[in-house]
Amino acid sequence: MPRILITGISGFVGGYFTDFLRTNRVDFEIHGISRSKPSWDFIPHSEDLIKNIVFHQGNLMDIPYIQSVITEIQPDYIIHLAAQSSVAESWESPISTFLDNTTIFLNIIDSVRRVGNRCKVLSVGSSEQYGIVRENDLPLNESVIQNPSSPYAVARVSQENLAKIYADGYQLNICCTRSFNHCGPGQNEKFVVSSIVKQFAEIALGKKDPVIKIGDGTVIRDFLDIHDVVRAYILLLEKGKRGEIYNVCSGKGRTIRSIIETLNNLYGISAGIEEDPSQFRPIDTPKLIGSYAKLNKTVGWSPEVEFEDSLKSIFHYWCSRLLPHVK
Amino acid sequence: MPRILITGISGFVGGYFTDFLRTNRVDFEIHGISRSKPSWDFIPHSEDLIKNIVFHQGNLMDIPYIQSVITEIQPDYIIHLAAQSSVAESWESPISTFLDNTTIFLNIIDSVRRVGNRCKVLSVGSSEQYGIVRENDLPLNESVIQNPSSPYAVARVSQENLAKIYADGYQLNICCTRSFNHCGPGQNEKFVVSSIVKQFAEIALGKKDPVIKIGDGTVIRDFLDIHDVVRAYILLLEKGKRGEIYNVCSGKGRTIRSIIETLNNLYGISAGIEEDPSQFRPIDTPKLIGSYAKLNKTVGWSPEVEFEDSLKSIFHYWCSRLLPHVK
Repeated sequence: MPRILITGISGFVGGYFTDFLRTNRVDFEIHGISRSKPSWDFIPHSEDLIKNIVFHQGNLMDIPYIQSVITEIQPDYIIHLAAQSSVAESWESPISTFLDNTTIFLNIIDSVRRVGNRCKVLSVGSSEQYGIVRENDLPLNESVIQNPSSPYAVARVSQENLAKIYADGYQLNICCTRSFNHCGPGQNEKFVVSSIVKQFAEIALGKKDPVIKIGDGTVIRDFLDIHDVVRAYILLLEKGKRGEIYNVCSGKGRTIRSIIETLNNLYGISAGIEEDPSQFRPIDTPKLIGSYAKLNKTVGWSPEVEFEDSLKSIFHYWCSRLLPHVK
Repeated sequence: MPRILITGISGFVGGYFTDFLRTNRVDFEIHGISRSKPSWDFIPHSEDLIKNIVFHQGNLMDIPYIQSVITEIQPDYIIHLAAQSSVAESWESPISTFLDNTTIFLNIIDSVRRVGNRCKVLSVGSSEQYGIVRENDLPLNESVIQNPSSPYAVARVSQENLAKIYADGYQLNICCTRSFNHCGPGQNEKFVVSSIVKQFAEIALGKKDPVIKIGDGTVIRDFLDIHDVVRAYILLLEKGKRGEIYNVCSGKGRTIRSIIETLNNLYGISAGIEEDPSQFRPIDTPKLIGSYAKLNKTVGWSPEVEFEDSLKSIFHYWCSRLLPHVK
């Protein structure tokens, strides 16, 4: 029975990844580590799911604790989902962003090395690592030079560089993702799609003036449904090559403003847009669109969920949370 | 009176830098921070020098302490010399190498940001950041793509990436060096030139069989005398441009083996060479030679000390330490 350890299991991606495993890899023994217990209000029957995992409550800054967990479990796979993954928050709290991305990852892989565990590790990174890129380099493939332009992006580049050293220098079996923006029901509203759809749901339910507040609406991002994301991750854990890096993306770019236009069209509403300069970042990355050719070639993955379908499921999530009779 | 704060003041570079300042910038008020008090047995009249500085004993992992020191001093300049700068040691202790390079640097620049101090910061980095490079790219200029190939190198790349974010995103006045190998009297013998010359001095004094043990003798490095290094640093503190990166190097490459040949020629001894595979690294960087054209253009610096003269002064240092009548 293969054993997997999921760091940051209690988070948004952790919930969907665990749900996917339970359904699609029924023989896996699932261990999770996090500072707080999972609740996953966005996953149907989450109580049953939680009963089917072994939860280890702890802090990834606590190296002896990590070593004891890895020694005890001797996992075949580790997926590192624990992260502070908000670019905006990284400008507010650069030190904790660095600790909660780079340092905790180093603590995990160094524990694997010291314990002598021979697991496969998936290091989850970010499209933000590319930073400010040239128009000619779009869609981005994995060999484009990185130009990280936020504290978060620097933390992720550092993480990936460490992963490469541990793969090449210490022969750990690590592969890396550069994951583009996610969306899905249950994502924290500090992320842009969740924030927009929540406001849109409030408007639809008559709880808010018909104006959606965003940061810079002209930036272009590549959004992938969370179900497609976690499917890519299990395939990479099983078939990703040691020391290699894989984009996880939709291959399509859209502006932040266009998300609101899509919602307006889907639901026949005319929500307006207000750009709030206080949400602008000191430096921003105007355009990130990825190519998933390498991932497709290595593991046979391609995206399956249409963006409009993601928006509908997120809209449904927010409506169910906002309507008093559901609570 | 300009005030300067020197982190890692008690170390090898800290001693020479302080000595240089005291002699060449007599109006500077010199503050130093380190875990242990300076002693600098390699600096003439070091007791007098120590009396002329304000020493702050503390740990750079202690953020409130750093903030209190910066608030108190309100420095005009900070030079960050504190580091774990041994590549070999970084393979043994990757976590502490990361903390003692990247994390402490982040703690310092974030303290400068939070305190609102408007000092000029010199971030000292390393030639190891270049890693494994193409023959065509030699001598290396600052725009060559970095390919860090040790835990130490990754830590230094992370440091530089953070420096750029703080310069561009938070408008801190930081510039960076990529400093190539140093040599000089008093350098710890875990560094290659010091190790070789110490063994050579033992042979010359009849205290050792005539064989010098080294790691991989074929690797090529660019060595710069410590006096030239610290002269470059003060010029960069005064004239280096915000967000820019400068090689600090001699522009000349030499193999490790050739250092022993040079010593044999200088002193008419025939010391042999033994390559010790236990000193080989999991991944090594075969050839690092820098170009100092940018530094020269910006601040007018070029190297002044011949390598042979460095070797003579290091030989003298080790002889004086090894001869019982001097002790």
